[in-house]
Amino acid sequence: MSAPLKRALGVCYYPEHWPEDMWAKDAARMVSAGITWVRIGEFAWSRMEPEPGRFTFDWLDRAIDVLASAGLKIVLGTPTCTPPRWMLDRFPDMLAVDALGRTRNFGSRRHYCFSHAGYRKASAAIADVLGRRYGQDPHIHAWQLDNEYGCHDTVLSYSEAARLAFQDWLATRYGTIDALNTAWGNVFWSMEYESFAQVDLPNLTVTEPNPSHALAFRRFSSDQVVAYHMAQVDALRAHTDAPLIHNYMGRVLDFDHFEVGRSIEIASWDSYPIGFLSDRLEATPAHKSRYLQQGDPDMQAFHHDLYRAVGKNGRWWVMEQQPGPVNWAPHNPAPLPGMVRLWTWEAFAHGAEVVSYFRWRQAPFAQEQMHSGLLRPDDAAAPGLAEAEAVATEISAMPEVSVQQAQVALIFDYPSEWAWATLPQGAGFTYFGLMLDAYRALRKRGLSVDILPSTTSDLSGYRLVLVPGLATLPDSLRHALGQTTALVGPRSNCVTEELTIPTPMGPGLPGLDVTVTRVESLSPGAHRTVPGIGVMQHWVETLEGSAQVTLQDADGAALVVSSGALSYLGGWPDAALWDHLIADAAARCGIETRQMPEGLRCRETKTHRFYFNYGDAPCEFDGLTLPAAGVAWVAI
Amino acid sequence: MSAPLKRALGVCYYPEHWPEDMWAKDAARMVSAGITWVRIGEFAWSRMEPEPGRFTFDWLDRAIDVLASAGLKIVLGTPTCTPPRWMLDRFPDMLAVDALGRTRNFGSRRHYCFSHAGYRKASAAIADVLGRRYGQDPHIHAWQLDNEYGCHDTVLSYSEAARLAFQDWLATRYGTIDALNTAWGNVFWSMEYESFAQVDLPNLTVTEPNPSHALAFRRFSSDQVVAYHMAQVDALRAHTDAPLIHNYMGRVLDFDHFEVGRSIEIASWDSYPIGFLSDRLEATPAHKSRYLQQGDPDMQAFHHDLYRAVGKNGRWWVMEQQPGPVNWAPHNPAPLPGMVRLWTWEAFAHGAEVVSYFRWRQAPFAQEQMHSGLLRPDDAAAPGLAEAEAVATEISAMPEVSVQQAQVALIFDYPSEWAWATLPQGAGFTYFGLMLDAYRALRKRGLSVDILPSTTSDLSGYRLVLVPGLATLPDSLRHALGQTTALVGPRSNCVTEELTIPTPMGPGLPGLDVTVTRVESLSPGAHRTVPGIGVMQHWVETLEGSAQVTLQDADGAALVVSSGALSYLGGWPDAALWDHLIADAAARCGIETRQMPEGLRCRETKTHRFYFNYGDAPCEFDGLTLPAAGVAWVAI
Amino acid sequence: MSAPLKRALGVCYYPEHWPEDMWAKDAARMVSAGITWVRIGEFAWSRMEPEPGRFTFDWLDRAIDVLASAGLKIVLGTPTCTPPRWMLDRFPDMLAVDALGRTRNFGSRRHYCFSHAGYRKASAAIADVLGRRYGQDPHIHAWQLDNEYGCHDTVLSYSEAARLAFQDWLATRYGTIDALNTAWGNVFWSMEYESFAQVDLPNLTVTEPNPSHALAFRRFSSDQVVAYHMAQVDALRAHTDAPLIHNYMGRVLDFDHFEVGRSIEIASWDSYPIGFLSDRLEATPAHKSRYLQQGDPDMQAFHHDLYRAVGKNGRWWVMEQQPGPVNWAPHNPAPLPGMVRLWTWEAFAHGAEVVSYFRWRQAPFAQEQMHSGLLRPDDAAAPGLAEAEAVATEISAMPEVSVQQAQVALIFDYPSEWAWATLPQGAGFTYFGLMLDAYRALRKRGLSVDILPSTTSDLSGYRLVLVPGLATLPDSLRHALGQTTALVGPRSNCVTEELTIPTPMGPGLPGLDVTVTRVESLSPGAHRTVPGIGVMQHWVETLEGSAQVTLQDADGAALVVSSGALSYLGGWPDAALWDHLIADAAARCGIETRQMPEGLRCRETKTHRFYFNYGDAPCEFDGLTLPAAGVAWVAI
Repeated sequence: MSAPLKRALGVCYYPEHWPEDMWAKDAARMVSAGITWVRIGEFAWSRMEPEPGRFTFDWLDRAIDVLASAGLKIVLGTPTCTPPRWMLDRFPDMLAVDALGRTRNFGSRRHYCFSHAGYRKASAAIADVLGRRYGQDPHIHAWQLDNEYGCHDTVLSYSEAARLAFQDWLATRYGTIDALNTAWGNVFWSMEYESFAQVDLPNLTVTEPNPSHALAFRRFSSDQVVAYHMAQVDALRAHTDAPLIHNYMGRVLDFDHFEVGRSIEIASWDSYPIGFLSDRLEATPAHKSRYLQQGDPDMQAFHHDLYRAVGKNGRWWVMEQQPGPVNWAPHNPAPLPGMVRLWTWEAFAHGAEVVSYFRWRQAPFAQEQMHSGLLRPDDAAAPGLAEAEAVATEISAMPEVSVQQAQVALIFDYPSEWAWATLPQGAGFTYFGLMLDAYRALRKRGLSVDILPSTTSDLSGYRLVLVPGLATLPDSLRHALGQTTALVGPRSNCVTEELTIPTPMGPGLPGLDVTVTRVESLSPGAHRTVPGIGVMQHWVETLEGSAQVTLQDADGAALVVSSGALSYLGGWPDAALWDHLIADAAARCGIETRQMPEGLRCRETKTHRFYFNYGDAPCEFDGLTLPAAGVAWVAI
Repeated sequence: MSAPLKRALGVCYYPEHWPEDMWAKDAARMVSAGITWVRIGEFAWSRMEPEPGRFTFDWLDRAIDVLASAGLKIVLGTPTCTPPRWMLDRFPDMLAVDALGRTRNFGSRRHYCFSHAGYRKASAAIADVLGRRYGQDPHIHAWQLDNEYGCHDTVLSYSEAARLAFQDWLATRYGTIDALNTAWGNVFWSMEYESFAQVDLPNLTVTEPNPSHALAFRRFSSDQVVAYHMAQVDALRAHTDAPLIHNYMGRVLDFDHFEVGRSIEIASWDSYPIGFLSDRLEATPAHKSRYLQQGDPDMQAFHHDLYRAVGKNGRWWVMEQQPGPVNWAPHNPAPLPGMVRLWTWEAFAHGAEVVSYFRWRQAPFAQEQMHSGLLRPDDAAAPGLAEAEAVATEISAMPEVSVQQAQVALIFDYPSEWAWATLPQGAGFTYFGLMLDAYRALRKRGLSVDILPSTTSDLSGYRLVLVPGLATLPDSLRHALGQTTALVGPRSNCVTEELTIPTPMGPGLPGLDVTVTRVESLSPGAHRTVPGIGVMQHWVETLEGSAQVTLQDADGAALVVSSGALSYLGGWPDAALWDHLIADAAARCGIETRQMPEGLRCRETKTHRFYFNYGDAPCEFDGLTLPAAGVAWVAI
Repeated sequence: MSAPLKRALGVCYYPEHWPEDMWAKDAARMVSAGITWVRIGEFAWSRMEPEPGRFTFDWLDRAIDVLASAGLKIVLGTPTCTPPRWMLDRFPDMLAVDALGRTRNFGSRRHYCFSHAGYRKASAAIADVLGRRYGQDPHIHAWQLDNEYGCHDTVLSYSEAARLAFQDWLATRYGTIDALNTAWGNVFWSMEYESFAQVDLPNLTVTEPNPSHALAFRRFSSDQVVAYHMAQVDALRAHTDAPLIHNYMGRVLDFDHFEVGRSIEIASWDSYPIGFLSDRLEATPAHKSRYLQQGDPDMQAFHHDLYRAVGKNGRWWVMEQQPGPVNWAPHNPAPLPGMVRLWTWEAFAHGAEVVSYFRWRQAPFAQEQMHSGLLRPDDAAAPGLAEAEAVATEISAMPEVSVQQAQVALIFDYPSEWAWATLPQGAGFTYFGLMLDAYRALRKRGLSVDILPSTTSDLSGYRLVLVPGLATLPDSLRHALGQTTALVGPRSNCVTEELTIPTPMGPGLPGLDVTVTRVESLSPGAHRTVPGIGVMQHWVETLEGSAQVTLQDADGAALVVSSGALSYLGGWPDAALWDHLIADAAARCGIETRQMPEGLRCRETKTHRFYFNYGDAPCEFDGLTLPAAGVAWVAI
């Protein structure tokens, strides 16, 4: 990795879906479009091993040969997210079970429980077989392990395998059942256990289970994903030095991506801006309507910055980039002309090495037959292809992956997502929503942002750090906060890792005498007003202590308290109040900000400032005029 | 059938619900009200056969005698939609299972799985017993087989019986498992099977099943209804020459009514205008409020025209006509005074032979105790009775069933409903909704309409044919389109019968060079505008090819393309745009149209033009003044 | 009970949740705050009997000693709503099953089926053990049996135990299966049974079950609660003379509280005004927003009056009073300053002996860790404590429980709730909603109200009685109606106890010739207008007969008919029409009324008139100025 990393385009390709005589033409056309990388194999288990133990790799050998001969670099995927039907004959109990107790059957994909030891071993075995065969193949430039862990809500499984594994996990974590009873407060409602074997999974209880029980199950479930993943990592590491990748799905938060990311070289994710806007984002109808054909202006950037943090040394890709209408959202409009280019450039501006389109040619069959590709099912070019080609030309003039550390950081923590999903206290309170609001507020002030894990212990490079909603603040991060200007809260460091309330109560910040003595969740439409500035909505806290009140509501109640560079925020601000807070904090730490026009965003690399117009009308800024869906950049 | 068919009224009667000494008075009162037909028996299995093999027909004999003696013609129903409790002792596995895996228990009605061989045989047996006893009875003028197949979502059953029968059905359809794998594209996500025995029903999969799998299951399920039905047809045919009827329920679309209709003489259906408006119709609150006590102005007419197509030689009835408030809709207001007469006359105007009210007297017990009858539970007249009597007088002056072929036809196809229910691509996209919008647009231009199946091969009698949403266009219909002016689309002929995308891509119309290269589903509120005319909503397609663009949106995108008399429509028009399209197409083919006032509809028979005012205020048109809920007719 | 009862404060305390060295300080602090009563023990089974048969009461002995030594009176609870985990080893089938067939597992509370004989016996056994040990303990001044029967929808259980018990119950009720078939009208849809063993529970049927079947199951289920309860009553009565209490939960209506109340001395209930507003009340968003931090102005008073009727000799408590934000509603804002005092005083004004706060100190763990107490988890005072202390001072100046019979009564009947839940006929029709609307209308006219059961046979002390929605009118009540001015209806006395329609049809009122010949349920937004006064919404009836029409709609349809002092109301009035009806009826029977300002309510005791301002702004009335959340009283 001494040579500087280069920007490149890729594409997802399924040779097994097409007659072999199309492959060479496809490969040539990819190359001619400026595509460098091609991902294959991740759904093809039934073609690699049509019967248990009978391997048929000849077609794959030929596909690799054809693609590599055309000059393409190959990412080879392990096909473990799609076990063939015969696997169920070996492991009839390998299927996951949903929270309502229903087995999740064969007939689509991801039909396995992460806790099933037999299937885990079988997954490692196919990875081993592939590693042995292709681990030293010079055409295989990277490996993808499984695909989209957790997609379709597959992390939390209530199977018998999960129940037994959970009991083992608890025994390891707590040592004795008394320790567990104490940690969870099981004396409440006489929920005390006499042995680990009595602890069931926390589903189908009469009313909600103990939050500590539920959070433990979530921690366990994440750990099971990591353990499942490691079995494949170990299998492949024995055979190859090529980088390992896992391909994450947007807003899948049920396992700890940082933990999975530890063992691989590259983090990749799947960017479907229009699908996400329709399906995975809380927003007003007006917002959803405004960005119907563009996607939310911050959702992709947030994930880009997140996966830059997940990837080792900041290496990350977009493995699947939406190239046109998709099939899976409630509504599936087409991108505005220009958006495919915009999305691609935005990823590069955030440091992506590769942006890979999903998929080369739209499949004429099965679940995703209405999912666009760069080509239509009849092999004609779809509109996305020309935009990809334009980017290919453009990156050849600006080839280097260029990242510089941002001035601002945002701490992101998966266990906090689980904690507040377990104990929202107010309908609609989500950690992700709070994080995205904070991130959006930074972006609307024109700032580039680094996302950091809660294990971060050095913030010295940052001028401003935001820590909203971090359930439990690690000591290392607490110490690091002293190195910078920091805005912590709301709902930060208010519970222990067991999801109980500590004494003294939070947030327990160094040098800041404030205690959150009461919290309130507010119904839609209710809020506390900061006259002339904005409101707190959803969530508001009562702050007590001697710290200086630096923001208060109309009744004089403290909303922000500060001591030096450290502030605590006691509520969930609306956009206007967020903007005030960010502008103010930035000013205090010497960061220049501007209010960006609606829909316009910018991002700085080492060498350029990029502008992205998510609006459907032209936009003027910094002396530039960007058309609808336009991208611009200036050297800095 | 040489004598012309006569219009008549009927009523549904349950002698088993009432003391025997009331029967004669009831019969006399029916006759005095002008009622000719009485349907009995269809829920009375526990009284016909209280224990397995012990038949008790004496009461039925006497009921038939009393009714016939009064001069009534009897429709006798087979009671197979209500198997007695003891049937479950014979066949504990006869119950249907819902998509979530829950057995659908005894305690109401329709508690059987169409695929259960034992119950199918038992159903044929009771039909045989009835046929033997009453097949030659001169008082039994028609037979009804079962009742409302598919009501309460009973077509799709996920039982073990269904699973095994589905595997047999697949083996017959595909021959080899490889053929099935290829037809469905099971290579996608490694869903390939090695044997038919591996194919499960498409429920409870991790994410959605292969659409080809789902559609096959729907085709199979419809075939099971037909096979179940044929067992009773065969049993009765051996004993009687009286016409056979099945009684369909409105907007039950899960089986192919044309297929069931093939084997019987008369199609009947159940018309509950106010219940349907509340429960089975997508419409704005304003529309639902406007027609709260009248029902939708087009819903009944649509079904009338549909069942005229389903019935052999166009013979059809309304077997159950709402006579007052019902019990089963979310809200159950009373009809405006006059509506019972209006609904009845509307059926006659569309060619009904018989309109039969449900029911004679409101039951004072059980599930439908709040469902009005022509009489109240205390035997007094309910408001509907006088309106029925008025119609009886009126039809005696206009007795002949009179139908003339319409100038306009609309193609209706059950598998298309299943295809788009399987693959909606946009939330809320339903085939039925699209069809009703098209039908409504024709009616709002004053047109009478024939509904035709997709197996139609001769359109020469029609000036204008509409083919929206027809998933796969049969060759015979494609050829027939050349005989007339036709407007095809949106979403027509874009998939194969296996629900895959063909190459070349659709719509593949003769002489019309157009390809739908992309589709978009739009969220509520989003649309593409045709300035000054209307908008496309829900659904819009990208049309490419050399065909002449005859309608385009504000950005110049083609929305309708034409070649001679054949046009393709690339979107789902709103009411205003539909009106423009219909008016324009009608003008081109020489059909005169007028915009009807809100709520007014008309329909022509051979001899008369009928007017129906669904409004709650008087309406003037064609020199006539119709009161609220009024009916008028003029000779033509 | 010769000494007059005194007002007192209490608190719920869980010594098992806290280190023993905190107990004495807690007790002293309670006393110092003016608290007299402390409830303990009701969730502590796992600490009383950690293994089957091994009792560990030493800690409880010490806790009682500490609390009593400080001067507190103790309510000791039987812990049967929280059976320990080992109980499931004894009775694996003791769990309830929900209507969808899912077992409701261990892991929270109330995990038992009321019909399980083994668990019922085990519950009596622990009550017996407690009674033996503490029945003569002078510190135990009252006993609570179980806690919140029915909370978390636990009355209706579809377990095997319930199925078998239901069949026995049916055999007892009906004697023969033919009698059951006749009573339910099972001839409808051939639902006739040949034996009681064939009758399943009325869940998971294909479409809705017979309403008579469903209502019988609800009656049975209520009887099972009573029988379960009696087992504990009998066990404790053998050992103690202290009053027995059950603690009911607000708007839990699935069992007959009057029946449970028969065997105990004191009824108590749990008053969570803000939680109820958010979670258990149908109201407009504007109403919910207006009272977000106060709770509905009539919900608590309604329950106060209800439990005064449930309690023997009118003895009742609030066992759990909300002291701050709770954890279980969709949104959980804090009470406005003053509301804790207001709620407490409102209970006293309605005749409560004790108002007991839930809970002393917020638990830092488990399900209710976000539920406020009088103290914070860190032992500091929460805002509610000072308000409780203020009340303590105030009641010491006005110590006597003071109740006088109201002039107005409202009949409340649990089986009517079940009847209309079974057969709503219109979405959203609930008996409770209708009752609360009637009650609210009375309160908005400044009236104090007594709630009475439908078994009442003497109304001579009342000037005005309202009987809305009473499904079946007992003869004794019918006779009593002649003693007063009465407004009966809508939907009153229209069905038999078996939920069938009687002949002659209802309401069958003495001397009032009116028959409800038709009912209509109206969708939201639809109504029938009384010009200048108000509208009927949701529900409207057609009234026929010779009775004088005293209110009619714009079309002249009768809405109220009267004969002398007896009137029948044929619809569900909106607030304006209710107000007109109440004002008019009150005037006719000589009750003076005034329209209260929005949010202000009053209530009279023997000695005082109390005023409660639920508004968030000051309010002037009767020469008084009440601040937001203010309470005032004047001697009368």
